[in-house]
Amino acid sequence: MCSFPCREAYAKTRRCSKDQAMAVYTDVAADELAAFLAGYELGDLLSYKGIAEGVENSNFLVHTSRGHYILTLYEKRVAAGDVPFFLALMEHLAARGITCPQPVKNRKGETLGKLCGRLAAVVTFLDGMWIRRPDPRHCSALGEALAKLHLAGTDFPKKRKNALSVSGWRPLFEQAAARADTVQHNLSDTIAKELAHLEKSWPRDLPQGVIHADLFPDNVFFLGDKLSGLIDFYFACTDTLVFDVAICLNAWCFEPDHSYNVTKGRDLLAAYARTRPLSTAELDAFPLLARGAAMRFLLTRLVDWLDVPPGALVRPKKPLEYFRKLRFHQKAASVSDYGFAGERKTA
Amino acid sequence: MCSFPCREAYAKTRRCSKDQAMAVYTDVAADELAAFLAGYELGDLLSYKGIAEGVENSNFLVHTSRGHYILTLYEKRVAAGDVPFFLALMEHLAARGITCPQPVKNRKGETLGKLCGRLAAVVTFLDGMWIRRPDPRHCSALGEALAKLHLAGTDFPKKRKNALSVSGWRPLFEQAAARADTVQHNLSDTIAKELAHLEKSWPRDLPQGVIHADLFPDNVFFLGDKLSGLIDFYFACTDTLVFDVAICLNAWCFEPDHSYNVTKGRDLLAAYARTRPLSTAELDAFPLLARGAAMRFLLTRLVDWLDVPPGALVRPKKPLEYFRKLRFHQKAASVSDYGFAGERKTA
Repeated sequence: MCSFPCREAYAKTRRCSKDQAMAVYTDVAADELAAFLAGYELGDLLSYKGIAEGVENSNFLVHTSRGHYILTLYEKRVAAGDVPFFLALMEHLAARGITCPQPVKNRKGETLGKLCGRLAAVVTFLDGMWIRRPDPRHCSALGEALAKLHLAGTDFPKKRKNALSVSGWRPLFEQAAARADTVQHNLSDTIAKELAHLEKSWPRDLPQGVIHADLFPDNVFFLGDKLSGLIDFYFACTDTLVFDVAICLNAWCFEPDHSYNVTKGRDLLAAYARTRPLSTAELDAFPLLARGAAMRFLLTRLVDWLDVPPGALVRPKKPLEYFRKLRFHQKAASVSDYGFAGERKTA
Repeated sequence: MCSFPCREAYAKTRRCSKDQAMAVYTDVAADELAAFLAGYELGDLLSYKGIAEGVENSNFLVHTSRGHYILTLYEKRVAAGDVPFFLALMEHLAARGITCPQPVKNRKGETLGKLCGRLAAVVTFLDGMWIRRPDPRHCSALGEALAKLHLAGTDFPKKRKNALSVSGWRPLFEQAAARADTVQHNLSDTIAKELAHLEKSWPRDLPQGVIHADLFPDNVFFLGDKLSGLIDFYFACTDTLVFDVAICLNAWCFEPDHSYNVTKGRDLLAAYARTRPLSTAELDAFPLLARGAAMRFLLTRLVDWLDVPPGALVRPKKPLEYFRKLRFHQKAASVSDYGFAGERKTA
């Protein structure tokens, strides 16, 4: 279909709460895109712009005579075999009332195509803005939306292993161990001890299901105070549901000075539990899962940090934010230390 | 207006035909943007995305209940005093039928505001796509549009000096001279000789007016084969009109292997001259102006290239593309070497 080779086009990096670079990796020519879209019932191509959204793929906001859409090119860093999982999940969730991008079918009834040598999909455009400084109401809305996402995913038939859960951490640590102390004195030793503890104690029998696994503020859209949509399902996988809650608590409930905001944490947990009650086993395991969630982001950030040559124009976010969060979680004895006491259901 | 300090947010670099990085330099929070837009008659803010457009500023595609707009934050690299020139020029040109972004006035009747500590403006959104591989028809459409732009600018009252014309080249060369030979053997000497020639011979008495000065393919939109708009007026200035033609010929009429495409060049020049006839003096000066245009981009690319530390994630485009173009122009004896012979008017 493509009449000439696509170029590796441009890479966009931003410093934000995410641990990877946001980028448009592939340049798409207008005639190639028009030829690709001719396979859909989307009318004429009127414009498209590379946008800063998503961390693993190239994204374009596309305007056609039918409306606005997001075109995603799946870059090599995303395993091709995983893309059908992500697209089927978005279809499944959208069909169950979760506001998320909905894959658009082409004339053959398929949601997955190929453009510029990459797997490519068109999804609906969602209005809404992400909140740079969430307040407790946003955390509460997030908790409710996360619980609804978990419930909507219970009958999703596909499975995908979480490569960034406990069994994935030691390989990451081994990449970083030798140079970790250049980031902070004794960091390597501290991680090694924590990792041993997490591997030994990690709960295996809590309720499993589809988790988003990356529901940071920039993946949650609001219109006014109302949560209007969830995006970027490209870390979604099958894992312990409450681990997703722990990831969100790490991402949403700490202040810029790394202090824990107990009001935000309580509101997130309470809103979640009102929609999907948490079992005693889930609540008891929460501090450990929160430590694991901090470890997961500490490790990927550490690897990214050490991976960038000195003198580079842009650097990933310093990994120590998650080290401080880990320290907080290590001191938590129970879920009540997060401000959440009641609303337990019997396991 | 801003309730909290904006962060230096993300920088986007792409490898393309331009000599600078394309970037979103400033992150704007939703509540800040909503407060800013409340000063306009644009309805409610529904979404906004940082986009890869323009090289000097941060640009966002903004969706409100009234439609789609481009928000530009003028970064420090743009002189604040120049912004009113650019906005007034776009208004002037749009009023004379040139399809370009049109500044939107706020409730006070002003086109220039302030957001996140930067000068900021909202302009209308233009549909259309830029052409990665222009063919002769595109070059012809460009030539006509450029001539119309020059004619529409004749009664524009504001002036802005071109900092990147002949008097600006020596300071750039002085930044790069000591290390130019690391890019290519003897480059420094070659540039020094050419620069001396250009400074001595540069024509001062050709027709002047508003020039775009950066009308590369990514600043020219097409819908189908029809030119649908011109964007990015942030290098626009008052200078020799035919110098703008020479810049376009450099940017549009060479092949990826650096060979000159005489069909494209002829079509560009002929279409231009049909709308704005070129005087004998302009035609005679053309090869020299083409050399100057190549020198201008060679020098800015060279400075950018040498400015990036080794090992950086992204590098600017290698400057030698414009060295090869310069070599071509040095061998041209007259405008007929560009494929253009007739349609002269008497000076």
